[in-house]
Amino acid sequence: MTKWVYGFGGGKADGSAKMKELLGGKGANLAEMASLGLPVPPGFTITTEVCTHFYKNGKTYPDTLRAQVEAGLVEIGRLTGRTFGDVSNPLLVSVRSGARASMPGMMDTVLNLGLNDATAEAIARETGNPRFAYDSYRRFITMYSDVVLGVGHEHFEELLGAYKEEHDLSLDTEVDADGWKDLVVQYKAKVREELGTDFPQDPVAQLWGAIGAVFGSWQNARANTYRRLHNIPDDWGTAVNIQAMVFGNMGEDSATGVAFSRNPSTGEAALYGEYLVNAQGEDVVAGLRTPQSLTKRERAASGAQDLSLEEKMPSVFKEFHDHVRRLEAHYRDMQDIEFTIEKGRLWVLQTRNGKRTAKAAIKIAVDLASEKVLTRAEAVKRIDPASLDQLLHPTLDPKAPRQVLASGLPASPGAASGEIVFDAGEAERLAGDGRDVILVRIETSPEDIHGMHAARGILTARGGMTSHAAVVARGMGRPCVSGAGGLRIDYARQVVTAAGQTLKKGEVITIDGSTGQVMKGRVPTIQPELSGDFATLMGWADGFRRMKVRANAETPSDARHARDFGAEGIGLCRTEHMFFDDERITDVRRMILADTRGGRDTALARLLPHQRKDFVELFRIMAGLPVTIRLLDPPLHEFLPKEHEVDEVAGTLGIEAGKLRNRLEDLSEFNPMLGHRGCRLGVSYPEIYDMQARAIFEAAVQVETETGKTLTAEIMIPLVAMRGEFDFLKARVDAVAKAVEGETGRRLSYLVGTMIELPRAALRAGDIAKSAAFFSFGTNDLTQTTFGLSRDDSAKFLPDYVSRGLLPNDPFVSLDTEGVGELIRIAEERGRKARPDLKLGICGEHGGDPASIRFCEAARLDYVSCSPFRVPIARLAAAQAALG
Amino acid sequence: MTKWVYGFGGGKADGSAKMKELLGGKGANLAEMASLGLPVPPGFTITTEVCTHFYKNGKTYPDTLRAQVEAGLVEIGRLTGRTFGDVSNPLLVSVRSGARASMPGMMDTVLNLGLNDATAEAIARETGNPRFAYDSYRRFITMYSDVVLGVGHEHFEELLGAYKEEHDLSLDTEVDADGWKDLVVQYKAKVREELGTDFPQDPVAQLWGAIGAVFGSWQNARANTYRRLHNIPDDWGTAVNIQAMVFGNMGEDSATGVAFSRNPSTGEAALYGEYLVNAQGEDVVAGLRTPQSLTKRERAASGAQDLSLEEKMPSVFKEFHDHVRRLEAHYRDMQDIEFTIEKGRLWVLQTRNGKRTAKAAIKIAVDLASEKVLTRAEAVKRIDPASLDQLLHPTLDPKAPRQVLASGLPASPGAASGEIVFDAGEAERLAGDGRDVILVRIETSPEDIHGMHAARGILTARGGMTSHAAVVARGMGRPCVSGAGGLRIDYARQVVTAAGQTLKKGEVITIDGSTGQVMKGRVPTIQPELSGDFATLMGWADGFRRMKVRANAETPSDARHARDFGAEGIGLCRTEHMFFDDERITDVRRMILADTRGGRDTALARLLPHQRKDFVELFRIMAGLPVTIRLLDPPLHEFLPKEHEVDEVAGTLGIEAGKLRNRLEDLSEFNPMLGHRGCRLGVSYPEIYDMQARAIFEAAVQVETETGKTLTAEIMIPLVAMRGEFDFLKARVDAVAKAVEGETGRRLSYLVGTMIELPRAALRAGDIAKSAAFFSFGTNDLTQTTFGLSRDDSAKFLPDYVSRGLLPNDPFVSLDTEGVGELIRIAEERGRKARPDLKLGICGEHGGDPASIRFCEAARLDYVSCSPFRVPIARLAAAQAALG
Repeated sequence: MTKWVYGFGGGKADGSAKMKELLGGKGANLAEMASLGLPVPPGFTITTEVCTHFYKNGKTYPDTLRAQVEAGLVEIGRLTGRTFGDVSNPLLVSVRSGARASMPGMMDTVLNLGLNDATAEAIARETGNPRFAYDSYRRFITMYSDVVLGVGHEHFEELLGAYKEEHDLSLDTEVDADGWKDLVVQYKAKVREELGTDFPQDPVAQLWGAIGAVFGSWQNARANTYRRLHNIPDDWGTAVNIQAMVFGNMGEDSATGVAFSRNPSTGEAALYGEYLVNAQGEDVVAGLRTPQSLTKRERAASGAQDLSLEEKMPSVFKEFHDHVRRLEAHYRDMQDIEFTIEKGRLWVLQTRNGKRTAKAAIKIAVDLASEKVLTRAEAVKRIDPASLDQLLHPTLDPKAPRQVLASGLPASPGAASGEIVFDAGEAERLAGDGRDVILVRIETSPEDIHGMHAARGILTARGGMTSHAAVVARGMGRPCVSGAGGLRIDYARQVVTAAGQTLKKGEVITIDGSTGQVMKGRVPTIQPELSGDFATLMGWADGFRRMKVRANAETPSDARHARDFGAEGIGLCRTEHMFFDDERITDVRRMILADTRGGRDTALARLLPHQRKDFVELFRIMAGLPVTIRLLDPPLHEFLPKEHEVDEVAGTLGIEAGKLRNRLEDLSEFNPMLGHRGCRLGVSYPEIYDMQARAIFEAAVQVETETGKTLTAEIMIPLVAMRGEFDFLKARVDAVAKAVEGETGRRLSYLVGTMIELPRAALRAGDIAKSAAFFSFGTNDLTQTTFGLSRDDSAKFLPDYVSRGLLPNDPFVSLDTEGVGELIRIAEERGRKARPDLKLGICGEHGGDPASIRFCEAARLDYVSCSPFRVPIARLAAAQAALG
Repeated sequence: MTKWVYGFGGGKADGSAKMKELLGGKGANLAEMASLGLPVPPGFTITTEVCTHFYKNGKTYPDTLRAQVEAGLVEIGRLTGRTFGDVSNPLLVSVRSGARASMPGMMDTVLNLGLNDATAEAIARETGNPRFAYDSYRRFITMYSDVVLGVGHEHFEELLGAYKEEHDLSLDTEVDADGWKDLVVQYKAKVREELGTDFPQDPVAQLWGAIGAVFGSWQNARANTYRRLHNIPDDWGTAVNIQAMVFGNMGEDSATGVAFSRNPSTGEAALYGEYLVNAQGEDVVAGLRTPQSLTKRERAASGAQDLSLEEKMPSVFKEFHDHVRRLEAHYRDMQDIEFTIEKGRLWVLQTRNGKRTAKAAIKIAVDLASEKVLTRAEAVKRIDPASLDQLLHPTLDPKAPRQVLASGLPASPGAASGEIVFDAGEAERLAGDGRDVILVRIETSPEDIHGMHAARGILTARGGMTSHAAVVARGMGRPCVSGAGGLRIDYARQVVTAAGQTLKKGEVITIDGSTGQVMKGRVPTIQPELSGDFATLMGWADGFRRMKVRANAETPSDARHARDFGAEGIGLCRTEHMFFDDERITDVRRMILADTRGGRDTALARLLPHQRKDFVELFRIMAGLPVTIRLLDPPLHEFLPKEHEVDEVAGTLGIEAGKLRNRLEDLSEFNPMLGHRGCRLGVSYPEIYDMQARAIFEAAVQVETETGKTLTAEIMIPLVAMRGEFDFLKARVDAVAKAVEGETGRRLSYLVGTMIELPRAALRAGDIAKSAAFFSFGTNDLTQTTFGLSRDDSAKFLPDYVSRGLLPNDPFVSLDTEGVGELIRIAEERGRKARPDLKLGICGEHGGDPASIRFCEAARLDYVSCSPFRVPIARLAAAQAALG
């Protein structure tokens, strides 16, 4: 007989963590915890095979399922001492879906199943807390009606609203036992009104309704779309988990809490967490009550009055602490554990790898490797490279004066200053205008996420370290101070009062998410100092890395940052950025406006010493590391003034405004992205590239003379589509090199290569590589041309794509491996076949994106190049890619 | 001993037409003609191996060459009864280069070599025509100095100019024998002045100088560039041809002429040609004297007074006519033959396949096939598909009144009207502004070619059917009337006088290149009637063709034309063209300006009946042939007014101008080509595509009901980059189809396919073909994105590419087979692998380009689609491609 039901609880389980396909992720983990001997509320899992059977057989169940479910309920009853549907000692259960991977769109949870008029009364009796019993009952009716019966929760909220109005109540917590009892009657009437049948009183009928709802939700529209997008086969199916309810709100000997096996903010190797006495789990998360510390040590550190769990329930604490240690050792990672204490008995509800700050993640990984729990390679693979971004944020200058307004919890590290804004939408709008804002809220909720993302930092008056604001801010890498109880926020008047001062919307404050301080005005910041753990981990990563990491930089300041962050060269020096300098732009414009070759040459001759100086500085800073210099790329009109500046600029240049307007007109293009730019400029005005090549070579000679060391400049020709273009321009670069060699009597060492940023260049790579010494994939433009999609224009309609589920990733952020990626692979293969020592790199913004870096490793590139601040991310991502 | 020199003449030759590699094209053909027994002026060819030897050995000749050249000269002397360098009976020779393929940039010709002070005097004596002798001598000095000695011809023109001014002469023909003799002295002095040495008097030295110049020119810059562009290896080398001079200007028993074995204008199977008594070949070509007819019949037809060759020299004519027949039979094609009669003796100088009008080409090919000279397949392969363009030009309406100003030669068929312009540069400028111009010149020269190309037609006052104007115009397919002697053209006053009327620049005239008439004003034209030969040939072509030919058409008129020209369906119906109609554009704008989905739906509902009517007409005309309809493609801003029309349009729409301006602003894009267009519109506003799909289906039902026949519409989604886009939109089309089926009770037959016009779509073709029933390659956009090159902007800089030899073909005219072509091959392969019955076509403008069509055949496409007027071209090109 097929086993459709797998039980867990009482220190053993039928399943294990390895049985995710059969039991789903949730079921397998519950089984695993039970097998470890943890006090998991007993329950059982109906396998995914039942789901498959359900859909293959006209939505019917296997014959033997009912008996197995009944036996499962009996076993839960045996372990809890309760009976499902019993009117004196009733067992309540939760019903949850559980596919192999968590999947939005499916039915999530029904709690308190088993409540009816009789069992509610029994619970009231048993707990001596009728308010609790009827509050639970009305919640159950709402949830069950909504997800199982299809009677929307808004019906019940309406009734509740009317009730509160009638009784002049403002909060749900003010509704008493009789109120809820009264509302339960109204709720049941509403269900009858909507459905024409009574709300099911039979717990068994309730249970099968919920099971059917879980299986039914596997094939609803949202779930289907999600599976299609993520290539999840329909026939995987979902499991159903049925588990005994436990309650942390059964009195002063009950509690509920969340713990981390190590500090999720700092990584410190000590138990860390929060709990609330006589509360439900959602009370901790909601942040309505500020929770108490788990340990004596934490309480001391925070100066809180309320006793820690360690002090209040020492033996339960000790049991819990043992479980935490066992879980961390078992899962080999820091654990985030939910627990409930029901009448002095500890239940562990859930464990998972804990979310943490980047700083904590590094410390934990390094510590676990030192403790020999992990290998170094595993430690390196543990860190999400993107999270390093947090560590690179500036912190407050400790020497700067500061006027502290309030203190809260250090919920997400980093310092930020900005204008006070009280509304998420407004935060987004102002940030869109380029303004720095701090989102200030009593507490946050999911509707605020877009505003949190747009803000420089988040400040809340309520909520703990695991409140919504704190969790989300850490995930985003935004500084956050939560639970700053000294703040009084008045949304209506758009002011916040603290330390006797009233600040209006628009006034500037600074928050320090690492200390919890809130300060008036803008406090100066300094660059982050990276911890020893960071250096240790990056050192390990560098040891595993195959690809080099370079930076895209042209200013001395960027180049220095790049080296500080470990860049091993410059992968993209955009020479045009050097043209915008005030001193130079006039000569650039003279060059563009010259009617004759002679006029152009004169202007170029004036630019030459500036460019040479730029390269001298860059070569000095990079001290022999490779430097790839891209010759002029943007269309010339980018250097000319906007219409409203024409008259002034014409005056500066000493020409007629009409002439400048004519040139602007001549140079205007329908599609500048596909226009007269890149090497096409070099073909039309080879003298520009000649000047740049000369500046590079003369700078190289100067720095070589200073240092006595040979320097190999890499000169890059942009936007090549045909080998002929490259050959024509390379011949000119070679001629300039020969001339400089003649003038200086030195042999120059240099490479001439090209960007691969057009589909045709990728396809013709075999031909181009016969002439080019290196390729650098310019994936920004390659993405634009491969998709036929303008980066500047697509923001207007890509949201339509996202909302219709047509585009899982922005291809300008994460490399499109299927399309653009295939062109890269083609170019790699053909290029290397033609020239086995061809150097290959990437210099588009994808060079700093971990997923794209993984692709670059697979495509056998030699290096990635990214913005200086992303160099550490790229180093780590490249190491992980190499580790596979 | 290696044979370096190959003789020909006297009815035999060492070489043959098959020895092009060794003898070059010219030498091989001279040998072939001599072997055929034609009276070719005797001569010899120095082989290409000498050229190779020359460059491999420091520009020296093989040891035995000199002796072989001397022997060659002796043999020429034997055959002509003259001696090279002899002062009483001198032999003069021409020296010409001759590579395997004719190659611009190389030294072409030195004539009259062997002239010096003594031989010139001998020629003067012999001919009794000292003017001829010294005119020839000064021409030789000019030519030899220019191409061999490097003393430019301008030096001699200066001296000639000064001489004419001094003697008050205006034309060269007015200079007498003494004048030329005087000038020869001056010319020689000039050479001495420039070089410090005398002009070589020794004929042998002259000869080796010329041979060296030919070999030297093989490696000059222009020749090298040409070879690189056309992939001609350097080591092919050139041959040198040395041939006895013959003279058609030795008196009244001498003559020179050009003949065609069939009429090059009509194709009529009768000898056709022109000659001049006592003249040199260049006199015929230059058009300074109007030549006489070759045959009595021709003379009668033209009503000319001067005797034909047939009448004037009947026996020479008879001999010549026999040679012409033999040459045509030998070469199996109409021949263009140059001949000279020197003192009653006939010499055939050259034969080649004759250029001809498209009409003539077709008649000749059909006739030759009927005569069993060619197979039908060969006949089909003989016609240049592009030349058919000429046949499809409109002709004058015979019923329209016309005021004839003058008559000339019917030099190139077709009728054209336009403004009179006297200057080629101006013709180009005005044509660039979209104006129709007729280029009116006394005669044309190569500098005028750009103006001839830009003009609608060409009219000259002088020159015959083989004049520069006539030859070039026929090649271009431009109507041309040449030698209209009644015209008096005054360049200075910019007027032309004819039939007593004076017309100024800018006045409109009409020319009919098929009759030679020049008319005042614009005469209405009618569509060409295609000849029976045309139909015969196209019928044969259709028999050989594998690919179908469709047309790009959306108007009923275009669709009818397409069918008349043999289109087998519509490959691209651009539905947006239907939106610009005056009646509809207002609703289109309302739709774009709608703030709400409701407003958009209202406007779309008003557009629906219009679109349905369009499709009903199209389906009726196409009578069951496939019709591919592309859903809306261009960005919406294309439908909105330009800035200066905003106020008026806002009035019409009844909205504020400010609102319209805001929408214009919203919709403006940096790179519209890569912007919100194609299926991206469908994703954002699916209701637009829904309306279009409904219009198509409702039209199909209506026409099916009328005809009782099933109709399969092909609905095409543009600009797809990802399968998800296609799937989303196809699902909506299917839903509309289902709705229309429900409403009408009929089953619809339709296909949904996509354009492949983005590199990503080509790469992902295997995925997209899982959903798409057909692909149509949109090679205009695919070329833009593959090259990253905007068609609208590239005209500004592509000339730089052409001038640097970087771009042999405009990739928007002829498909880039290496880059874009590879993407097409990839898409074909992957698409067919996923869906073996995938229909594949091309609908970019390349679909009407013969070279691109050849590629499409190789890429196994099912059909090509092009503009209606190019359908015959495509039919023929497809047949040729299939014939291989």
